[in-house]
Amino acid sequence: MTDLATSTPAQLATLDAAGRATLFTDARTANTFAPTPVSDAELAEIWDLAKWAPTSANTQPLRILYLRTGPGRERLVPHMNEGNRTKTASAPAVAVLAVDTQFHEHIPTLLPFKPELKDVFAANETMRTTSGTFNATLQAGYYILSVRAHGLAAGPMSGFDAAAIDAEFFPDGRWHAILVINIGHPGPNPWFERLPRLHQQDTLRWT
Amino acid sequence: MTDLATSTPAQLATLDAAGRATLFTDARTANTFAPTPVSDAELAEIWDLAKWAPTSANTQPLRILYLRTGPGRERLVPHMNEGNRTKTASAPAVAVLAVDTQFHEHIPTLLPFKPELKDVFAANETMRTTSGTFNATLQAGYYILSVRAHGLAAGPMSGFDAAAIDAEFFPDGRWHAILVINIGHPGPNPWFERLPRLHQQDTLRWT
Repeated sequence: MTDLATSTPAQLATLDAAGRATLFTDARTANTFAPTPVSDAELAEIWDLAKWAPTSANTQPLRILYLRTGPGRERLVPHMNEGNRTKTASAPAVAVLAVDTQFHEHIPTLLPFKPELKDVFAANETMRTTSGTFNATLQAGYYILSVRAHGLAAGPMSGFDAAAIDAEFFPDGRWHAILVINIGHPGPNPWFERLPRLHQQDTLRWT
Repeated sequence: MTDLATSTPAQLATLDAAGRATLFTDARTANTFAPTPVSDAELAEIWDLAKWAPTSANTQPLRILYLRTGPGRERLVPHMNEGNRTKTASAPAVAVLAVDTQFHEHIPTLLPFKPELKDVFAANETMRTTSGTFNATLQAGYYILSVRAHGLAAGPMSGFDAAAIDAEFFPDGRWHAILVINIGHPGPNPWFERLPRLHQQDTLRWT
């Protein structure tokens, strides 16, 4: 272990063009889905890959409620904005991404060399909410790319009534919904023409 | 265009094991860096790949200030938490990720079929702040994986005085710092032993 830990790693690998296409340059937000099912194993594996990407102090506050087709889905659809209802009803799988507002309870396990950070978060709700929301949202970004890594299309939506979803699915108040993502294989005419991206002169500064 | 737009896409590709290792399973947060420089072209390309991943209503509120070594870096280091100063001073490049609080001004360009959304955000500062911070944070997740896609190690840090960084680098008040990331090739003994991840029973629910 010591020899490994103190060695300098070899040159890191880059992501090849096919990988960049799958995750970034060719991938698109899907608005229609084929009836091809998405298995529970696939849904678990999407999270199992995304979980490795980093969070502040390894806190990992993201949680996921998976809704397959059926009664659970029917309870979700009315809480989506009207323009999102048809696609949310028809997607093979839907993930409700949420922040665990009590994420700090896991800190002694997740950050064993600094278990007292749990008490810092327990004593400061504002800091806990800010940090939990920030890190769960970072993880939501990783999660969307992990959906794509599994050969599936993601349809992330922020148009929904979060308080209503929380009341419907998380009545104990511990989880709070931050993003809803339709998941499946793309259907007919699945996406719009690609929208523009900002230019470097509008986004990057240099010092 | 119509033929393309109405066709059903072929089966989407998956990300291969090497790509998963580069972005997720083998990649680690670096705490030391080799002196190997990181070029401006590499830094621009990291953003140029990350920009393709999705945001709500294509708003793209993330902005980046790149600090190479020199006077700019020296102005940043005192605003980092003490435990982050040495590594921030020594990294070949540092990215300050920020949200553009006036991101809605670009909406007529970015969402040409719904330019009036600009006015909705202009009239509602709470909604603008919430949406801007959420989407910039999603983009920060994409950005970290894009650093890795370029064969570089990222060292993301949330331990800094955001108000002091804003005052120092963004005095007009338009950009607000959300994350600072050291970027470079890993140096000697660059990372800790891998910390644990939560289990599925703590993170996933099914309906």
